[in-house]
Amino acid sequence: MPTHTITRSYKFCAAHRLHTDQLPPDVNQKIFGKCNNANGHGHNYTVHVTVQGELNPETGLITDVDLLDRRVKELIVDRFDHQHLNCDPAFEHVVTTGENLAKLVWEILIDQIPSGRLAKIGVVETRDNFFEYIGNPQP
Amino acid sequence: MPTHTITRSYKFCAAHRLHTDQLPPDVNQKIFGKCNNANGHGHNYTVHVTVQGELNPETGLITDVDLLDRRVKELIVDRFDHQHLNCDPAFEHVVTTGENLAKLVWEILIDQIPSGRLAKIGVVETRDNFFEYIGNPQP
Amino acid sequence: MPTHTITRSYKFCAAHRLHTDQLPPDVNQKIFGKCNNANGHGHNYTVHVTVQGELNPETGLITDVDLLDRRVKELIVDRFDHQHLNCDPAFEHVVTTGENLAKLVWEILIDQIPSGRLAKIGVVETRDNFFEYIGNPQP
Amino acid sequence: MPTHTITRSYKFCAAHRLHTDQLPPDVNQKIFGKCNNANGHGHNYTVHVTVQGELNPETGLITDVDLLDRRVKELIVDRFDHQHLNCDPAFEHVVTTGENLAKLVWEILIDQIPSGRLAKIGVVETRDNFFEYIGNPQP
Amino acid sequence: MPTHTITRSYKFCAAHRLHTDQLPPDVNQKIFGKCNNANGHGHNYTVHVTVQGELNPETGLITDVDLLDRRVKELIVDRFDHQHLNCDPAFEHVVTTGENLAKLVWEILIDQIPSGRLAKIGVVETRDNFFEYIGNPQP
Amino acid sequence: MPTHTITRSYKFCAAHRLHTDQLPPDVNQKIFGKCNNANGHGHNYTVHVTVQGELNPETGLITDVDLLDRRVKELIVDRFDHQHLNCDPAFEHVVTTGENLAKLVWEILIDQIPSGRLAKIGVVETRDNFFEYIGNPQP
Repeated sequence: MPTHTITRSYKFCAAHRLHTDQLPPDVNQKIFGKCNNANGHGHNYTVHVTVQGELNPETGLITDVDLLDRRVKELIVDRFDHQHLNCDPAFEHVVTTGENLAKLVWEILIDQIPSGRLAKIGVVETRDNFFEYIGNPQP
Repeated sequence: MPTHTITRSYKFCAAHRLHTDQLPPDVNQKIFGKCNNANGHGHNYTVHVTVQGELNPETGLITDVDLLDRRVKELIVDRFDHQHLNCDPAFEHVVTTGENLAKLVWEILIDQIPSGRLAKIGVVETRDNFFEYIGNPQP
Repeated sequence: MPTHTITRSYKFCAAHRLHTDQLPPDVNQKIFGKCNNANGHGHNYTVHVTVQGELNPETGLITDVDLLDRRVKELIVDRFDHQHLNCDPAFEHVVTTGENLAKLVWEILIDQIPSGRLAKIGVVETRDNFFEYIGNPQP
Repeated sequence: MPTHTITRSYKFCAAHRLHTDQLPPDVNQKIFGKCNNANGHGHNYTVHVTVQGELNPETGLITDVDLLDRRVKELIVDRFDHQHLNCDPAFEHVVTTGENLAKLVWEILIDQIPSGRLAKIGVVETRDNFFEYIGNPQP
Repeated sequence: MPTHTITRSYKFCAAHRLHTDQLPPDVNQKIFGKCNNANGHGHNYTVHVTVQGELNPETGLITDVDLLDRRVKELIVDRFDHQHLNCDPAFEHVVTTGENLAKLVWEILIDQIPSGRLAKIGVVETRDNFFEYIGNPQP
Repeated sequence: MPTHTITRSYKFCAAHRLHTDQLPPDVNQKIFGKCNNANGHGHNYTVHVTVQGELNPETGLITDVDLLDRRVKELIVDRFDHQHLNCDPAFEHVVTTGENLAKLVWEILIDQIPSGRLAKIGVVETRDNFFEYIGNPQP
């Protein structure tokens, strides 16, 4: 059966620090290296939101892109842009790795897709470091 | 079983307008927003053609790239480059969305792959808007 | 004397057709080739606005970036995005080449720079085609 | 079940020539065209290494990135960077196509992934030519 | 007289916050907007170092690139990568704008160019925000 | 006086080796490092050709782009694409550095610009290594 996807990309600039209070400082340093530096660092993040859906034969669309953009802007970009990720409540006990960020974006958006369904979240942290996450579908 | 793919990218510049005569003007405007503007707009389109195939152990190739390039140039690039997509016969009753463009490219190329099989079509409309389509295999 | 510049990039998608009524059709076709095709084509344009200025020692800035962004959005992006350039009054008797577009952007922005002065306009038409213009300073 | 991947990109510059001694010169020329030119040519290669794994709930990681980087640097980048691929023992009887290069990188790395498992190898040969390979899992 | 330049690009990830203690909080907020958010944010910075020099007719080089790379790595990348710019002593009383960062890089490197002379520093903060600085030559 | 430029980009893939017979092997190795490896390596080169000219008020153009493209294709791309630069007669006694390549392209094109004048040649060797050359104008 044919498969259509659209991937929209969104950007935000944020600071973060890889660190967990569950482990002692030297273990944090060993695991996260320079990403554990005390004052944090930052990235220009790009988030790819991939929606899969059936083609509406009349409009040629699989989802309402304007509505999707508004929701991602409100729920993701406005929340994280020009912020320190470690200060976000969702990361209070969760390390701000690309893996966890992709997972969080999935969980925030899973029931917000106007039509079609969320198929994949991608997070570009640097030009040489890219994360993808496919989570559980909406219950 | 191991899987080999090659993805070749092709470019064309075209105008288009998202509009369907099947719906009244105000509904077109509501659905397509500024993409429905009367005089059209345009993009630098990039089309990704992904071919999957078995490795020829002698040549190390999965398809004949020169032949593939010639066919895509003749059937896709020469047809759409520096044209208005809405003037193409295939779009007479079909909206020129990225979804439909990806589907059309699939249908044009599905029986034109020199060896191996067409696995996916990607269409880059802007740097933040990307479509993928996997259609039915060749009958 | 030290020189500081900031370059901000803005994007819009537009259709255009290279054509002048001052020349007969066959000459238009000869000069502009496929860019003269009757129904037009289009691009994802990127405009680079370069401002040169003196560093404010207190703020570390050479211009008011938010104000600059608002002005470019209002005067350039909102005017040309998702439009057909040939329908713009400024191009009624002027060919919509990259050269003329860069010149027009300069003329629109020359007296709109919050502080510092406009130093250069760049227009990216395709990934392999780039125009730059430096016009007369504000009188 | 949720799926996490990380893709790390690595670069090397190398020369190569598409040629096989198993075929006569005119057949090599016919199959490989200008890529068969006697003195070879070259590329800025980018290799994408995609690792899939389970999220460590404590660290938020799926693999040890520093260790992965060290192994890819030692086993891939140091071996091929600023070299002629056809002089590598692995290519003595194997054509240096993108398909074979992706396959070789897979075979070198398949049992070197610190944790998680190798999911895909990508090879960017030029901006318009991209290869992917998914091989057999580690025995 | 002919002019040769080479531009090398270097990357680092850093956090920063646009803020000056010389101005009250509301003025900081008004001037720097979201860049003034208390916890900071961050970027993937790219620094372009442009060296101009005379061509050595024997080697075809204008500077010693390996030595340049080592110095930029030691003096710029190692200093700022995975750090918070506001914690750097150079920014104790200086706002961490792109303008000031470019100027600081110039001042650090001006007397460190192996041969030839420093001609320009570029700082890419985001894909749409680029700074250039040409400072005073070495005394 | 206003200044218009157009920059066209062209690509070719080539092998090269930094080496000069005028110096002993150990000095070559010391100066050129891994770029001196005996079997050579290679790059995806991009050449930027910048032409400056007066705007033709009727056509809005500063040069004949099609003619420029044909000349660069014939004189540069066809000559170097899929070749080993060191085998080119121009590099018989000249090291194939980016500096010398930019200079050679200038010298080849200086009297081939359809209208306007050659203003600059850029050579992108890798994503982090860029050369520019401005030579003597045509006599």
